[in-house]
Amino acid sequence: MTHFTDLDTLRAACLNLAMGSDSAAAAVRERQARLTKPEGSLGRLEELVAWLARWQGRPMPRLDRVEVLVFAGNHGVTRQGVSPYPATVTAQMVANFANGGAAINQIAGVAGAILRVIPLDLDHPTQDFTQAPAMDAADFLRAVAIGYEAVSSNTDLLCLGEMGIGNTTSGAAVAAALFGGGGSRWAGRGTGIDDAGLARKQRVIDIALDRHAASLDDPLRIAMTFGGKELAAILGATLAARHHGTPVLLDGFVCTAAAAPLTRLKPDALDHAMLAHLSAEAGHRALAAALGLHPMLDLGMRLGEASAAALAVPLLRAAIACHTGMATFADASVDNRT
Amino acid sequence: MTHFTDLDTLRAACLNLAMGSDSAAAAVRERQARLTKPEGSLGRLEELVAWLARWQGRPMPRLDRVEVLVFAGNHGVTRQGVSPYPATVTAQMVANFANGGAAINQIAGVAGAILRVIPLDLDHPTQDFTQAPAMDAADFLRAVAIGYEAVSSNTDLLCLGEMGIGNTTSGAAVAAALFGGGGSRWAGRGTGIDDAGLARKQRVIDIALDRHAASLDDPLRIAMTFGGKELAAILGATLAARHHGTPVLLDGFVCTAAAAPLTRLKPDALDHAMLAHLSAEAGHRALAAALGLHPMLDLGMRLGEASAAALAVPLLRAAIACHTGMATFADASVDNRT
Repeated sequence: MTHFTDLDTLRAACLNLAMGSDSAAAAVRERQARLTKPEGSLGRLEELVAWLARWQGRPMPRLDRVEVLVFAGNHGVTRQGVSPYPATVTAQMVANFANGGAAINQIAGVAGAILRVIPLDLDHPTQDFTQAPAMDAADFLRAVAIGYEAVSSNTDLLCLGEMGIGNTTSGAAVAAALFGGGGSRWAGRGTGIDDAGLARKQRVIDIALDRHAASLDDPLRIAMTFGGKELAAILGATLAARHHGTPVLLDGFVCTAAAAPLTRLKPDALDHAMLAHLSAEAGHRALAAALGLHPMLDLGMRLGEASAAALAVPLLRAAIACHTGMATFADASVDNRT
Repeated sequence: MTHFTDLDTLRAACLNLAMGSDSAAAAVRERQARLTKPEGSLGRLEELVAWLARWQGRPMPRLDRVEVLVFAGNHGVTRQGVSPYPATVTAQMVANFANGGAAINQIAGVAGAILRVIPLDLDHPTQDFTQAPAMDAADFLRAVAIGYEAVSSNTDLLCLGEMGIGNTTSGAAVAAALFGGGGSRWAGRGTGIDDAGLARKQRVIDIALDRHAASLDDPLRIAMTFGGKELAAILGATLAARHHGTPVLLDGFVCTAAAAPLTRLKPDALDHAMLAHLSAEAGHRALAAALGLHPMLDLGMRLGEASAAALAVPLLRAAIACHTGMATFADASVDNRT
């Protein structure tokens, strides 16, 4: 069991990051140039193969074992009326995941991925962060460790996602704390709150930023103060994947916000992560831009649950199938350009 | 065997189009609102299911049989130096398709689709359309009929694509003839031509527009004069799919240009077709906009071969899996919004 005994231990782990294999990425580019297609004509599929190769450390990357991890948490800030759904829905959706009835169950099936759902002590929500930090250091580090441990070292690709009524408010607060701009820049409608609710959500974030102003210069304290247990677990899982050499697909707004503090500790900390989709949640475009992440898909989704991350998996399977299965110009006796 | 005995027979078939099932699309929307997710949170996936339902005429659409049809043709206009690849490559790539070595072989496999490649008399290229119409009416109607006949009535989804050295010049000329603007608006780099080649390509299109000015008021004459046999076959296949109630995924620039004349005969003629991807080929954005088509993907591809159409199939599989497999709020005892 990984123990992050204190924030400094975790901080040290966040700084200890390998850079992936240049030679594996170069080998992909060299092979792609010989395959029977105009150079570069598979566009981003070619870059995605090089990215997988770099982080798997293999010139011929594979997707034999793809895992989807969905972390679930409850949030004290729901008492501020930031969601149109009752907090009971978090546990009910975890049961729905177990019974195979949610969107992610279906999409993971199409993706050929293993789905695991990890609820984080749903009976004990975080504190309402307008009143106190969402978590104390012990709770935060425990959630990070659960996420870290959930990643098996033999996974070829990790899709990350979350479920938690109230957590777009947490995600927006984390983004605001990291990148500035307040509630009006980062709060969105989440599961579909009305105008009055959106205004409340913005105000809640501004109040919290004000109350916890002393924590804003430390990215891990930001995650602890404004985040949630499922966000902390996503941070831990993203870090574990980097340590294991596993590429990551990030899902939507909350998932991106959860991983974002890592980049404030080390700017290249998300180089092994790809953003699967640009969420319709209001703050996601600005957050992706702040992190330099270019989404693979833009389909107006805003569900979470790793739904968009899993949806992107077949694109990667196709990219790898082309890389490994296509003939070269020489193999196929196709004339190259004159 | 379908006989389009003359252009007027074909024109009549192009005007005789059903509108799909309003009730099937409405049933999808009604069910989507009851599934365990915030309303609308699957974004475009929800619309795609409604679209499939409308054109399949079923409230629960299916993708049991997905077919990819790739039509191949040769082009007299290649003698004008519009491609960096020799015209021999068309037949060589058809052999590569047969041997399983091309990108579309790999992507169709990931998509769970049946691939059929249909070469159109490759030993007899079209005429160089700077000198004469690319085809006479008999050749054009024969190619349209081959495309029309290639569509089996029990296909749940049809992916269309093409292969043909020189055919981005044909596609650009068709687009220019239909929508105006000349070679500089529509010509792109195709398989990767250099600056001088691009200038030649633009000039070739302008010369042809000038020479065949008398044909510009008839969309079918435009397809015959500036197109190619594989473009004509795509037009025929798109029409057949509409007649059979089969939704269509269009691939890239050439494929879109091939189907475009249908909309000049009847504005809703491509309502059963979805654009899979926005090609990196220069004219595709303007062409998609002119047709009101919103691409599903934007991954910088520019290969043709139906590669992007097949790549989009798993997104549709995921959309349908959610629609058919998810629990409703009532089934799963999940509380709906307060």
